[in-house]
Amino acid sequence: MKSHRKELWFETKTRLAFVNITEDVQAALAASGVREGLCLVNAMHITASVFINDDESGLHEDYARWLEKLAPFDPSPEAYHHNRTGEDNGDAHHKRQIMGREVVVAITKGRLDFGRWEQIFYGEFDGRRDKRVLVKIIGA
Amino acid sequence: MKSHRKELWFETKTRLAFVNITEDVQAALAASGVREGLCLVNAMHITASVFINDDESGLHEDYARWLEKLAPFDPSPEAYHHNRTGEDNGDAHHKRQIMGREVVVAITKGRLDFGRWEQIFYGEFDGRRDKRVLVKIIGA
Amino acid sequence: MKSHRKELWFETKTRLAFVNITEDVQAALAASGVREGLCLVNAMHITASVFINDDESGLHEDYARWLEKLAPFDPSPEAYHHNRTGEDNGDAHHKRQIMGREVVVAITKGRLDFGRWEQIFYGEFDGRRDKRVLVKIIGA
Repeated sequence: MKSHRKELWFETKTRLAFVNITEDVQAALAASGVREGLCLVNAMHITASVFINDDESGLHEDYARWLEKLAPFDPSPEAYHHNRTGEDNGDAHHKRQIMGREVVVAITKGRLDFGRWEQIFYGEFDGRRDKRVLVKIIGA
Repeated sequence: MKSHRKELWFETKTRLAFVNITEDVQAALAASGVREGLCLVNAMHITASVFINDDESGLHEDYARWLEKLAPFDPSPEAYHHNRTGEDNGDAHHKRQIMGREVVVAITKGRLDFGRWEQIFYGEFDGRRDKRVLVKIIGA
Repeated sequence: MKSHRKELWFETKTRLAFVNITEDVQAALAASGVREGLCLVNAMHITASVFINDDESGLHEDYARWLEKLAPFDPSPEAYHHNRTGEDNGDAHHKRQIMGREVVVAITKGRLDFGRWEQIFYGEFDGRRDKRVLVKIIGA
């Protein structure tokens, strides 16, 4: 069994951002030499997500507004008890649960085994500082 | 390490539908010959989900109403900017994020290692056309 | 390829509860002898979740209130058609979809390959009875 590990680093300029990381994951897969297996891609921070959806700017605007409606940014400790700790990112811990921590992608014949429109995104909900994504590949 | 790949195809008659695919996944597992490993089951389309829950029609009615409340169908480009592209399925991209893209199921002694009520479902949110699910199995 | 299976059992005193299971998963990993691989941790019940987030009591209070808002407890069969079956846990099947069924964690050099604040939780939404979590580890 082969395995391969790669970290991707991000510092987004905005609190909320979506970054297409598909090519970075494909590069990690190429480096791994794995032909058949599974590829895990996960946020290493708990105020961020990795998810698969469409690379379409209108959709990303929709997601941003929708997440803001489901879990609005509010630094007050009344809105989010988590903010009693001195943090202001209680909302981000909720947005991340909607969008998910990780994706697992099949590897077939040395490629990410994707449908036509599948693209991997890093979803940032508390940006403007260094954050990491882990790519872990196992297979043969 | 063994690996096995199987596509399942669907064309639901309704825009929203839930299809129990547990037996199809079990058949793929039997064909794989894997005794110990992991089984990934994912939607290959970004307006559909694969999830595990109960095969109970009342619950599926509840999910349909709840998802419609959280992300209502609305073809207008004002409701969903994604619909500026000419699509009318902005809502489906949101419903899919709630229900998830994929499940990973343990394989033990050649069987899906399930709790008593676990069943795998394909969740369709923009049906009435051909869609695919991928089953990828790795193990020994 | 090595594989290892471990069940964790819970009976929470309250209907809703969050239990940190990180040490239990680490113990299963140590018992497995796997150095490089993947670790699946999933609820075996469909009214419970496994998720990764912060071990911070204020955040858990926030999650409880937020989930109650998104899918309120209501035993009536009008609120949840699922409750026509005689169950009163329709809400729990919805809360579980928000928080997710499972996590997949990378294993690197014999350890859970975590970011600084990542902790694994069992999320219970219909407690006060025996429930199970499955840990399945594969790798080399």
